[in-house]
Amino acid sequence: MFDKVLIANRGEIALRIHRACKEMGIQTVAIHSTADSDAMHVRLADEAVCIGPPAPKDSYLNMAAILSAANITGADAVHPGVGFLAENADFAEMVEEHGHVFIGPTPEHIRIMGDKIAAKEKAREIGIPVVPGSDGGIETDAEAIAVAKEVGFPLIVKAAAGGGGRGMKVAESMDRLPEALSLCRSEAKAAFGDDAVYLERYLGHPRHIEVQILADGQGNCIHLGERDCSLQRRHQKVVEEAPSPALNEEERNRIGKTVTDALAKMNYRSAGTVEFLYEDGEFFFIEMNTRLQVEHPISEMICGIDLVREQIRVATGAALPITQEDIKFNGHAIECRITAEDPDTFAPSPGRITDYHAPGGLGVRVDSHLYSGYSIPPYYDSLVSKLIVHGNTRNECLMRLRRALEEYVIGGIKTTIPLHERIIIEQAFINGDYDIHWLERWMGLK
Amino acid sequence: MFDKVLIANRGEIALRIHRACKEMGIQTVAIHSTADSDAMHVRLADEAVCIGPPAPKDSYLNMAAILSAANITGADAVHPGVGFLAENADFAEMVEEHGHVFIGPTPEHIRIMGDKIAAKEKAREIGIPVVPGSDGGIETDAEAIAVAKEVGFPLIVKAAAGGGGRGMKVAESMDRLPEALSLCRSEAKAAFGDDAVYLERYLGHPRHIEVQILADGQGNCIHLGERDCSLQRRHQKVVEEAPSPALNEEERNRIGKTVTDALAKMNYRSAGTVEFLYEDGEFFFIEMNTRLQVEHPISEMICGIDLVREQIRVATGAALPITQEDIKFNGHAIECRITAEDPDTFAPSPGRITDYHAPGGLGVRVDSHLYSGYSIPPYYDSLVSKLIVHGNTRNECLMRLRRALEEYVIGGIKTTIPLHERIIIEQAFINGDYDIHWLERWMGLK
Repeated sequence: MFDKVLIANRGEIALRIHRACKEMGIQTVAIHSTADSDAMHVRLADEAVCIGPPAPKDSYLNMAAILSAANITGADAVHPGVGFLAENADFAEMVEEHGHVFIGPTPEHIRIMGDKIAAKEKAREIGIPVVPGSDGGIETDAEAIAVAKEVGFPLIVKAAAGGGGRGMKVAESMDRLPEALSLCRSEAKAAFGDDAVYLERYLGHPRHIEVQILADGQGNCIHLGERDCSLQRRHQKVVEEAPSPALNEEERNRIGKTVTDALAKMNYRSAGTVEFLYEDGEFFFIEMNTRLQVEHPISEMICGIDLVREQIRVATGAALPITQEDIKFNGHAIECRITAEDPDTFAPSPGRITDYHAPGGLGVRVDSHLYSGYSIPPYYDSLVSKLIVHGNTRNECLMRLRRALEEYVIGGIKTTIPLHERIIIEQAFINGDYDIHWLERWMGLK
Repeated sequence: MFDKVLIANRGEIALRIHRACKEMGIQTVAIHSTADSDAMHVRLADEAVCIGPPAPKDSYLNMAAILSAANITGADAVHPGVGFLAENADFAEMVEEHGHVFIGPTPEHIRIMGDKIAAKEKAREIGIPVVPGSDGGIETDAEAIAVAKEVGFPLIVKAAAGGGGRGMKVAESMDRLPEALSLCRSEAKAAFGDDAVYLERYLGHPRHIEVQILADGQGNCIHLGERDCSLQRRHQKVVEEAPSPALNEEERNRIGKTVTDALAKMNYRSAGTVEFLYEDGEFFFIEMNTRLQVEHPISEMICGIDLVREQIRVATGAALPITQEDIKFNGHAIECRITAEDPDTFAPSPGRITDYHAPGGLGVRVDSHLYSGYSIPPYYDSLVSKLIVHGNTRNECLMRLRRALEEYVIGGIKTTIPLHERIIIEQAFINGDYDIHWLERWMGLK
């Protein structure tokens, strides 16, 4: 086991990793920018090294400074956390080259999954379902009709050079296909100077479902069930829950097995998440995150497994000590991402916390680095607290979440607590009846 | 269901009850002395009524003031919490007479179990094992020998008028009995002017094991397993754990069944705890607490059942919605009672909290009313926080507890956190190898 781990991150996730280390008897090294000298992870760590000025590129993205902190402190391993360098294959490589263990997957796996096209090819290769469509560009209507017969309707015609929602036409049936092709081609030509198009199955009301896995690089891979992260605003997850209220037992087992079989085949190591769009019983690969995720605690709450501890354990070269049969799902968990932002305008609201009371009691977990007197610096991500609530049933979980949000006091700054309070009493949310567009529609953004 | 509940208590337990109410959609009324105007339960409650000056007799024990607060606010029910009026049968009666529901057992049951002699008789009557001995005073040596043959050795001879550890002699075997009798009689005569003595089985190294039950007054009674509360200082529990590391499965099931059968027979209602001394596979009744207990969260953590919610539910007249088969025990939980006291001298340390960071993360629960800026008044019990930690195994729980204690920051006052940190790394504690005398011996008090 490692004696000392350097935590190459900040905020709540640095504290989260510190906690796992201390429970394993491992010493911790915090790194921090000059803006974070008073941060909780710095106060609690066994050692702390200042690695640069506030700007992320000069500190938390400064690989040379971080490696030198690891060398100076004699850290056995480096945990990259979430964000910053967590999915940087070069950093993982450099950490290993300098004689430290990188607590994460191999640089090769980080690299493949970090490239959208390579990731999709890899997914297909190892048996993970992707959105069906033309493999490349479509030249003629006849070719489009042939693809459409295979893929089925509704279809979406997309400009190969497109992006930002432009150059896309939906065709509901075969007789509307020629019109959609022609419209898309001319729009693509006008907008991007390129009329190449391709086809994909169109998903009208998909949910974002992701499968949390844990693997040891020795061919063993288990899953900790799925998370439903459909509540998003501008592609940022806002509320997550596990299990998904949309999946049935058969779907849950099926996608879990598909993912674990595939990643075992790939000989994946560490924690990872495979993200899908889900619609009407079908799953379509979006991407794989080769790291811990912000929403990992809800899986921990329903499985009782500490994901960071298992990441650390397999990083030592140990085999997974548990099999799929050991994973027992228990109850329901929901996480609210509380950010230091105006709940109406989403304007950032950094500043000094003047009053702080975190909710406690049965089934309530708070992952936060906040304390009364702490000043939130303006340079980083606005996430300041993850409120995670567990209940024996989804309904118990919802009632507890309502209570916990009501109880939470964060004075001195604006936070999104009032937004969360409004979301969770919406009938659609209570019914579990939402897709990835619901939150933005509800907020009047769509 | 009730619309509004008055919480007739203060501190962390008032907050605990508030939380359960809010999760059930019930409005709360806080009562408080003038010393508690800024208390967390007062800040969070829907309504608050000041019921008198700081001295408990003028406020939290002031039945007239509390009843008038219940009348004025129109509370449907009163939860007495822990301590103060929680085991006062007269209060329970008065609450009901004034048209509110008392969230607890019937006044009759509170009264019986509050009287040591009546409680022991009742226990014997309903089939709960008591310490074997002479039922009353022993007149002659021959009588003593006859009792001794039935009860077995070691025996203790106790002065009927005794107390405070005086007037007690242990006899290890039959041939030492006459000497013990004669010594005890003369000591009793000298100390209390009364040489009446009685005999009891002597327990040399007992543990304090208590069984948590939940009953509906309709003949249904379930248990939530046992708690081991052997770590005591001056009869005050310091650290509690569930399950007990000393009991095996057969003993656990046996005592659980004995207690639930007995209390179902008595038609008990609400939460309650039957306390035992346990030695070498045998249980001996000490007393029954007809209320919630400070250490109730460890049972909640291993069963996933909210005891306060169930108390409230059965108080409405509802039958228990769960049976014994629904109770699944999961993992291990430990509670540390953190008090505002010097960890070496136990001198009270009230005052203002200047810095506060409660541990969070997986498996950590904090039941505390503290916040940075809060001033602990000097008039009440010194309990300021209950740190409750859950793990899949006892070892995981211990590692997590160590981390959580290390992480806990309560600045501005002295607390017993350092004492807890020392206790939990003692080999005897790690091995689960302790009895009710261990802590005081370890502290050099014995």
